[in-house]
Amino acid sequence: MKKYRVGILGATGMVGQRFIQLLENHPQFEITAVAASDRSQRKTYGEACTWRLNGEMPNAVRSLPVQPPQPPLDCDLVFSSLPGDIARETEGSFANAGVPVISNSSAFRMDEDVPLLIPEVNHQHLDLLTRQRRSNTSGGFIVTNPNCSTIMLVLALAPLHAAFGITSTVATTMQALSGAGYPGVASLDIIDNVLPHIGGEEEKIETETTKILGRFVNDAIEPAPMAVSAQCHRVNVADGHMAAVRVNFTRKPELGELRGALSSFRSLPQELGLHSAPANPIVVRDELDRPQPKLDRDAGNGMTITVGRLREDTVLDYRFVVLSHNTVRGAAGAAILNAELLIALNYL
Amino acid sequence: MKKYRVGILGATGMVGQRFIQLLENHPQFEITAVAASDRSQRKTYGEACTWRLNGEMPNAVRSLPVQPPQPPLDCDLVFSSLPGDIARETEGSFANAGVPVISNSSAFRMDEDVPLLIPEVNHQHLDLLTRQRRSNTSGGFIVTNPNCSTIMLVLALAPLHAAFGITSTVATTMQALSGAGYPGVASLDIIDNVLPHIGGEEEKIETETTKILGRFVNDAIEPAPMAVSAQCHRVNVADGHMAAVRVNFTRKPELGELRGALSSFRSLPQELGLHSAPANPIVVRDELDRPQPKLDRDAGNGMTITVGRLREDTVLDYRFVVLSHNTVRGAAGAAILNAELLIALNYL
Amino acid sequence: MKKYRVGILGATGMVGQRFIQLLENHPQFEITAVAASDRSQRKTYGEACTWRLNGEMPNAVRSLPVQPPQPPLDCDLVFSSLPGDIARETEGSFANAGVPVISNSSAFRMDEDVPLLIPEVNHQHLDLLTRQRRSNTSGGFIVTNPNCSTIMLVLALAPLHAAFGITSTVATTMQALSGAGYPGVASLDIIDNVLPHIGGEEEKIETETTKILGRFVNDAIEPAPMAVSAQCHRVNVADGHMAAVRVNFTRKPELGELRGALSSFRSLPQELGLHSAPANPIVVRDELDRPQPKLDRDAGNGMTITVGRLREDTVLDYRFVVLSHNTVRGAAGAAILNAELLIALNYL
Amino acid sequence: MKKYRVGILGATGMVGQRFIQLLENHPQFEITAVAASDRSQRKTYGEACTWRLNGEMPNAVRSLPVQPPQPPLDCDLVFSSLPGDIARETEGSFANAGVPVISNSSAFRMDEDVPLLIPEVNHQHLDLLTRQRRSNTSGGFIVTNPNCSTIMLVLALAPLHAAFGITSTVATTMQALSGAGYPGVASLDIIDNVLPHIGGEEEKIETETTKILGRFVNDAIEPAPMAVSAQCHRVNVADGHMAAVRVNFTRKPELGELRGALSSFRSLPQELGLHSAPANPIVVRDELDRPQPKLDRDAGNGMTITVGRLREDTVLDYRFVVLSHNTVRGAAGAAILNAELLIALNYL
Repeated sequence: MKKYRVGILGATGMVGQRFIQLLENHPQFEITAVAASDRSQRKTYGEACTWRLNGEMPNAVRSLPVQPPQPPLDCDLVFSSLPGDIARETEGSFANAGVPVISNSSAFRMDEDVPLLIPEVNHQHLDLLTRQRRSNTSGGFIVTNPNCSTIMLVLALAPLHAAFGITSTVATTMQALSGAGYPGVASLDIIDNVLPHIGGEEEKIETETTKILGRFVNDAIEPAPMAVSAQCHRVNVADGHMAAVRVNFTRKPELGELRGALSSFRSLPQELGLHSAPANPIVVRDELDRPQPKLDRDAGNGMTITVGRLREDTVLDYRFVVLSHNTVRGAAGAAILNAELLIALNYL
Repeated sequence: MKKYRVGILGATGMVGQRFIQLLENHPQFEITAVAASDRSQRKTYGEACTWRLNGEMPNAVRSLPVQPPQPPLDCDLVFSSLPGDIARETEGSFANAGVPVISNSSAFRMDEDVPLLIPEVNHQHLDLLTRQRRSNTSGGFIVTNPNCSTIMLVLALAPLHAAFGITSTVATTMQALSGAGYPGVASLDIIDNVLPHIGGEEEKIETETTKILGRFVNDAIEPAPMAVSAQCHRVNVADGHMAAVRVNFTRKPELGELRGALSSFRSLPQELGLHSAPANPIVVRDELDRPQPKLDRDAGNGMTITVGRLREDTVLDYRFVVLSHNTVRGAAGAAILNAELLIALNYL
Repeated sequence: MKKYRVGILGATGMVGQRFIQLLENHPQFEITAVAASDRSQRKTYGEACTWRLNGEMPNAVRSLPVQPPQPPLDCDLVFSSLPGDIARETEGSFANAGVPVISNSSAFRMDEDVPLLIPEVNHQHLDLLTRQRRSNTSGGFIVTNPNCSTIMLVLALAPLHAAFGITSTVATTMQALSGAGYPGVASLDIIDNVLPHIGGEEEKIETETTKILGRFVNDAIEPAPMAVSAQCHRVNVADGHMAAVRVNFTRKPELGELRGALSSFRSLPQELGLHSAPANPIVVRDELDRPQPKLDRDAGNGMTITVGRLREDTVLDYRFVVLSHNTVRGAAGAAILNAELLIALNYL
Repeated sequence: MKKYRVGILGATGMVGQRFIQLLENHPQFEITAVAASDRSQRKTYGEACTWRLNGEMPNAVRSLPVQPPQPPLDCDLVFSSLPGDIARETEGSFANAGVPVISNSSAFRMDEDVPLLIPEVNHQHLDLLTRQRRSNTSGGFIVTNPNCSTIMLVLALAPLHAAFGITSTVATTMQALSGAGYPGVASLDIIDNVLPHIGGEEEKIETETTKILGRFVNDAIEPAPMAVSAQCHRVNVADGHMAAVRVNFTRKPELGELRGALSSFRSLPQELGLHSAPANPIVVRDELDRPQPKLDRDAGNGMTITVGRLREDTVLDYRFVVLSHNTVRGAAGAAILNAELLIALNYL
């Protein structure tokens, strides 16, 4: 099979390292370029990058030179996890230079003509690429994945919204340290502590959710007519975001219906057998004390979200707790699954 | 001043140790008896108890013999932090033997004739003691304080309910390890982890809140007509419970009114100048990242709760984060403040 | 290939779970019996055991009944991780009933006729089994592996002792929580803390080391003539014991010789290609800040120890830091490797 | 009493904040100037500094302008906790401008004419100031305190060296996060982990120790003739450095003598009744599991070190574990005690 040649923007960061880890031995992609905005340039990746994930740095990238994040790079497409402040200009320049950009950054997520894609949820939004191509005829385009907390929330909500209609949802997150990148959160700030603030996170969850669950109508996304509330906290966990969620429905289902809609959920990536698609996007656990970050973040190689503590609520209709691996399903894995879908649907 | 002679039931546990720490040098109480249900009996307290709080074990209790938790004990009243399974029988036997029981246990909290007391909130409920005295003429009685998470939630809600009328509230807690006692949570369960379940906690918060905020009518408590939803989690913090809270009001106030109602809140314990009453029951902080357990749990010697991140919500009317020291304001300090109020109002 | 039918004593504990995890899909063993001394009996393993390791409980053991730890069990040999207080009687009864006992418990380690075995280090000590067979003609016998900290220390010392002669060694350990079993260390004891005491650990390291490095002479082990000092600490790490080590030699080598003796070390398990034997028993890392528990504990599937910070010392001759996975190489994996060696050498 | 007007160099850092916290309400000092090398300048201290210690920022410093760390500052002397890279030039310029510099930085510690002072140990070394004054006639001078780990090690060794003569010592440290300043250690690096490297620390302990314990002879310090070995580790503890120590003596004492020399140790600061001097510089604890950072770091308001696990060693003569508060006795408190001694001995 032909392998797509990919460049990684932001390759030395935490999500950049996950891209490299997850793409090792990937049947459809090979990494041919790595770029970073920091002082790493002019070194090889092996010299520039302190590897912070389990296992060793893949040998294939060790000798690649770290390049500046600007076109041209020797690749067919780029995966980007650039920091927000430089992502907009840099990703735009790649797209304008004819390079497809599969981005984990927040810069373009809410742009009207940019798909904010979760393959199991809103692959119909890829029709926005037709609109992008009208303004950018270079062959380049931008597809984004949502914020790490939004992804797990929306993956859990999607089958419920389809079946019963969600009118409002209230999510309270307990998020992992790796979500802040490296060095990220200072150890003195989080030992014996919880931080009740993550910059921009509550707004991202509240706005991204209605876009993703919206309908593609008249060449545009019509946001889903639901109210979303998010309160976000940083807890002393390395990997694995958790959210306590309540939901109100247009039609309140029975508990069994709700559980069934979650556990039986399959979608296009499963039908297409995409390489990174988990057999079950959602696992429902009935133990009293699950999900837990340490025990459940690696479900489905980090691509399955886990739902537990599903119960009737006393203010809204139902409540549950959802967990996912924030740098796999919530970041690098999300972007890779997006690229796999783009290939399967002939966008790449 | 005459000092009341007090016994501590459950004296070797985490809350028992807090009782002893907080009562050292207290102007109104001296500890004359310590009791525990475990194998500590027949030893002195100094021998039986491994002290787990900062600082040294107070000398005054070192040589007290650890006695079985049953009447008679050489004291005027008892503070109890017995485990739930034995509290009901034991506390009842003390009350029937003529001993006032100031309890932190859950056993009697929801009994119809037992005050579930927060001195700043519902001192009127002490009229229930008249009812207790009709069935128990020994002179003994039982007054309880709420669950550690309920106290901070209700303290924050009380001035808002009084001013604007709360119709529903949604609380998501992140609770400290000391709330589980000792040995409590196994370290292997909480390192790099969050536990989404604390036995009985969600039910306690949901039921206790409406009792405390209820009105005393016709010799009974009429629960407040509000819906309460709680989702509870254990996080890797030693002391300091936190809750993310949303509230709906009968009349939605302006943000400034809301803030003012919280920060200006004073009540009977402040007017009476009770020894353990903080000058401000509620501190409101405007920094983006407060409250934090490590920085705010000791506010007001652990008796002040801290509210932060006060903002309009997108589903309910408002949201905020509240924090308090779970074994001071949430347990031992709560019971001691209850006793101080009972003295001031001539119940003791 | 014929599979040996094995029973697991102490099957529900932390090391018992590791046995079951490591034996899943093992080419030479299948688990046919599980036993535990606690209240788990009369339940299936799936009912009795709360699985605390990553991944799911292997299906093959779910339906096995949990039996009392006493012979007969339906198996060819037993792996034991029973608590010290009952291990001596129980393991002895299996050995006397004709069952080979491969034990991780401390009970028999220092017995004169019991091999304290690390396959890479002292397989010659298996000759002690001849002596055991003289007093126990049932066909049963006992082979033990060392304490979790001893194993990594001795693995690092063995090639150095062989090449240069060790006269004394000083080890200061920082040990992981899983070494204390479950529930083990209370979270309130270890959050923001270090514990400078682990019961019996310093003595075990000091006595076991000289036995393992001793010579088999005249039907007995003559302890190695070296002085060993251990100071042991518990740190807030889930898995992975670390030790800071200094060593004095009969003949002080060059640094390069020392490094080479460690990194080139191979032994009988590697020659025999034992299933659990790592390609390299010892990896030497030259980065300034390695080894680290989080990054190095899983080297060689948890069977490789990592040595770093190798330098001349200012009091003894050399110093270094060594790390290994305490429940794999330090416990269950050690016992399994022992059993694999016993098969290869026809003791089983 | 006249109060000395002091400036704080590096006022916004972790040690700078400790200076400000410890000097609040100090009878001999008032803070009249704060300086920092970062972007804090032109703001008030209240604006520039995110307070990271327990309790609130003292009001007296809130409105002080943050100035650049260069003379002149409006003060009689400066306390410095500047980072190593700028300390040498900056502290030198203050000393040359006639300002006494009481420094916690490492820049001048090993200079031949600079006292490396622990008031309980080597106040005789202050005679070096005579030598400084020969080359610097401005009235300024520099006095330094040792590295945070060196202080506790030397405090424990000093009475033993005086009584029995130390020939060598081996220390293995487990150091707290606050020793690295803020932001310091990244949380992702230390959660579930230990770091076996702290830049420059081992060398500092090994060299500073012999200087402090050296004799003042012929206008210079003659290093103590002992060998010192240090291996240093960072552990997941907020405050409180711990070291496992072994010692060899010229004359090996009985255990009781050793214990007595430690627990009875008093010195000049105690005789002079210096404000920050603890009643007991060293507390010896006999419990099996002490000292512990969480329980013992605040002994003597953070100025007392705690020694435990005192036992005969199997390689050297004796071993023990020592603990102290690294930013109080190990940094800001050390410098303040130095200044108090300088006043008492009329150097200020």
